[in-house]
Amino acid sequence: MDSINIRQLAVELNLSVGTVSKALKDSYEISAETKRRVTEMALRLNYIPNPYASSLRRRKSKTIAVVIPEVADSFFSLAINGIDAVARNKGYHVLIYLTHESFEREQTILNECKSGRIDGLLISVTKETTDYQHICDLQQNGVPIVAFDRVAEDVNIAKVTTNDFESGYLAASHLIEKGCKRIAYLSLSKNLSITNQRMEGYRQALVNYSIAMNENDTVFCTMDDAGNQQLIEDLLSQSNHPDGIIISVEKLILPVYDACHNLNLSIPSKVKVISFCNLPSARILNPSLTTITQPAFEMGETAAELLFKGLEKRNFILKEESMTIPSILNERESTL
Amino acid sequence: MDSINIRQLAVELNLSVGTVSKALKDSYEISAETKRRVTEMALRLNYIPNPYASSLRRRKSKTIAVVIPEVADSFFSLAINGIDAVARNKGYHVLIYLTHESFEREQTILNECKSGRIDGLLISVTKETTDYQHICDLQQNGVPIVAFDRVAEDVNIAKVTTNDFESGYLAASHLIEKGCKRIAYLSLSKNLSITNQRMEGYRQALVNYSIAMNENDTVFCTMDDAGNQQLIEDLLSQSNHPDGIIISVEKLILPVYDACHNLNLSIPSKVKVISFCNLPSARILNPSLTTITQPAFEMGETAAELLFKGLEKRNFILKEESMTIPSILNERESTL
Repeated sequence: MDSINIRQLAVELNLSVGTVSKALKDSYEISAETKRRVTEMALRLNYIPNPYASSLRRRKSKTIAVVIPEVADSFFSLAINGIDAVARNKGYHVLIYLTHESFEREQTILNECKSGRIDGLLISVTKETTDYQHICDLQQNGVPIVAFDRVAEDVNIAKVTTNDFESGYLAASHLIEKGCKRIAYLSLSKNLSITNQRMEGYRQALVNYSIAMNENDTVFCTMDDAGNQQLIEDLLSQSNHPDGIIISVEKLILPVYDACHNLNLSIPSKVKVISFCNLPSARILNPSLTTITQPAFEMGETAAELLFKGLEKRNFILKEESMTIPSILNERESTL
Repeated sequence: MDSINIRQLAVELNLSVGTVSKALKDSYEISAETKRRVTEMALRLNYIPNPYASSLRRRKSKTIAVVIPEVADSFFSLAINGIDAVARNKGYHVLIYLTHESFEREQTILNECKSGRIDGLLISVTKETTDYQHICDLQQNGVPIVAFDRVAEDVNIAKVTTNDFESGYLAASHLIEKGCKRIAYLSLSKNLSITNQRMEGYRQALVNYSIAMNENDTVFCTMDDAGNQQLIEDLLSQSNHPDGIIISVEKLILPVYDACHNLNLSIPSKVKVISFCNLPSARILNPSLTTITQPAFEMGETAAELLFKGLEKRNFILKEESMTIPSILNERESTL
C-alpha cells in the first residue's frame, strides 16, 4: 500500500497541515478529539512521517553518512570533495563508509545507520545490489536519503545521476565516426544501473549506425585485476578482434592498456579506446586517453545540497527529486 | 612540566597500579585516606589519565576520525582503505575530515572532536601546520591520537611514517647515477616534516656526490595548479636549466609534464623526472614515471592498528610509539 504525505492527510481530514502536524506531535493546542481523528486517519491511509518531520526529532547528530563502493577512485574522491564542501558549509560532519562492492556490507552499514547516528545519507550502491529493501527501510525510518551516480532505479528515492545512456551512445558513436567496425563494451556488473544504461546507449548507437553487435563483445569483468586483463587479452586475441573498446569503469583502464601492450596492439592504430574516467592523468597517459568525464564534484555537491534541502525545508518531498548533470567527451590520442 | 603515567604514580605512592586506579575512580573498596594520598600525589606529579583510562569512560562512540588534507590523492585514498579495513574489523565507524591544507580548518575539526564524538583520531597535518597545540589539547583531553605520514615531529605523539630522508636521498642519487648534473626539488611547503626530510635527503645526496647545490632549484609550489606550472616553466626556461627533477608530492606531476610539453623538453632526454607517487597509472604515463612509492595502505593499516592497541590495551603508552615503513623505488622511462 502506498503511503501518503502530510498534505494529503490534511486534505482528507479537511484540516490545515499545521493542525495535522501539531496533532501528530501531541501538541497541547489541539483537542483530544482532533488528535484521535488525525491518528486514526493517519493509520488508515498509511501516513509515514516525512523525512523532515522525523529529522526534527532526530536531527541531533549533525552528521551525514556517505556510503560508496571505493575511495581510491577519482570519481568518488572528487564527489566526496563536493559533498564535503557543502557539509562543512552547513556545519555538518561526514561519515564515510566503504562497501568495497559488497552488498552484505552495504546492508550492515545501512542497518547501523538506523540508530540515530546520522541525520541523512548519500549512497552510491554496490555492483552486487539488486534488492533495495535496506534503503527503503532506512528511509521509512525517517532518514532522508539521496542516491547519486549508482542509483536504485525502481525505488522511490531522490537521485542525482549523469546522462549515462546518452554518454554510452556518445562513446560508441565517437568510435564509429573514427572508423571502428567492431566495438567491445567492458562492464563491471550486470546489476549496476549506470553501466547498464551506458551499455544500452552503446547498443542503440550500433543499431542506429547499422553496426553488427556481437554478444561476446560485452565483457563483464570482476574485481580481480589480473583476471580482467586475461579476459581482455582473450577478447583481443581473436583473429577478427574488436577495433574499438568502451571502458565503463576507470578500474579497467590499466588492464586494457596492459593487455594491448602485451599483445603488441598499438592504441589507437589497432584498437581505439575510450573510457568513462575522471583521472586528471588521462591526458598524460601513453597514449593520452579519450574520456567521458562525469561531473563528479558537481554530482557530490548537488546530492548534498538536495539532502540538506530535505533536512531543512518543510513540505519538500525529497524522495521525488531527480536530477541529471551531463557528462563531457574529451577527445584525445587514444581514439585518433 | 612532564606528566607521569599511572605506573610511575603507583611507584611513588608505594601502592599497586590497581589500588591507584581504583582510588582515582573513587571506588568503595579504597579507604578515604588512601584516596586522599593518591589524589594529592597525582596533582603534585601532574598525573594525566592515560588515553586508555579515559577512553574507558568515553569509549562509547565506536567511531574513529581520520583528518587528512585531501582524499583525491592516491596516497590518502589508499591509506583510508588501510584504516577502513582495520576499523571495520573492529566494528568501528570512520569519520573522515578533509582540511584542504587549511590549518584553521584543522584546528576547528580537532576542537569539535573534543565533544566525545570520537574514541580516537588518525591525523596527517596540513602543509600550513607549525603549531601543534590543538593536537596536544585533544590528546590531553583523553583522545588517543596517531599521526601518520605528515607528522608533528616535535610533539610527543604516536607516529607512523615512511623513510622520507632515505627516500629523498635515493631519489637524488638515482638521478645522479643516471647522469643528472643539476637537480631541482619541488616542494609544497616549508613546514611539512615529510617534504623537508625528503629535501634533506636530496641535499645530502648532492653533498655526497659533490654536485653543486643551487638554492633556487628548490621550488616551493602552492595549491594553484596554473601558478605551479608557471613556476616550473620559469625553472626550466633558464639557459642552463636543471636536467633532473624530484617531485615531492603527486599533485605536482601534471604541472611538470605539462611544463615539459609546453617547453618542448623531452622526458627523459632533456629532463629526467622522479616523483613520490602512489598513482597506479604511473606506469602507463607518457613517458612512464619513475616513482618512490610509499606504503600507503600499510601505513594506514599500521596507524589504525596502533590506535586500537591504544584504545584496547592497558599499560600501553601509545604516544611513545613510532614506526617507520620503507618506501620503494620503481624505475621507469622518465629517468632512463
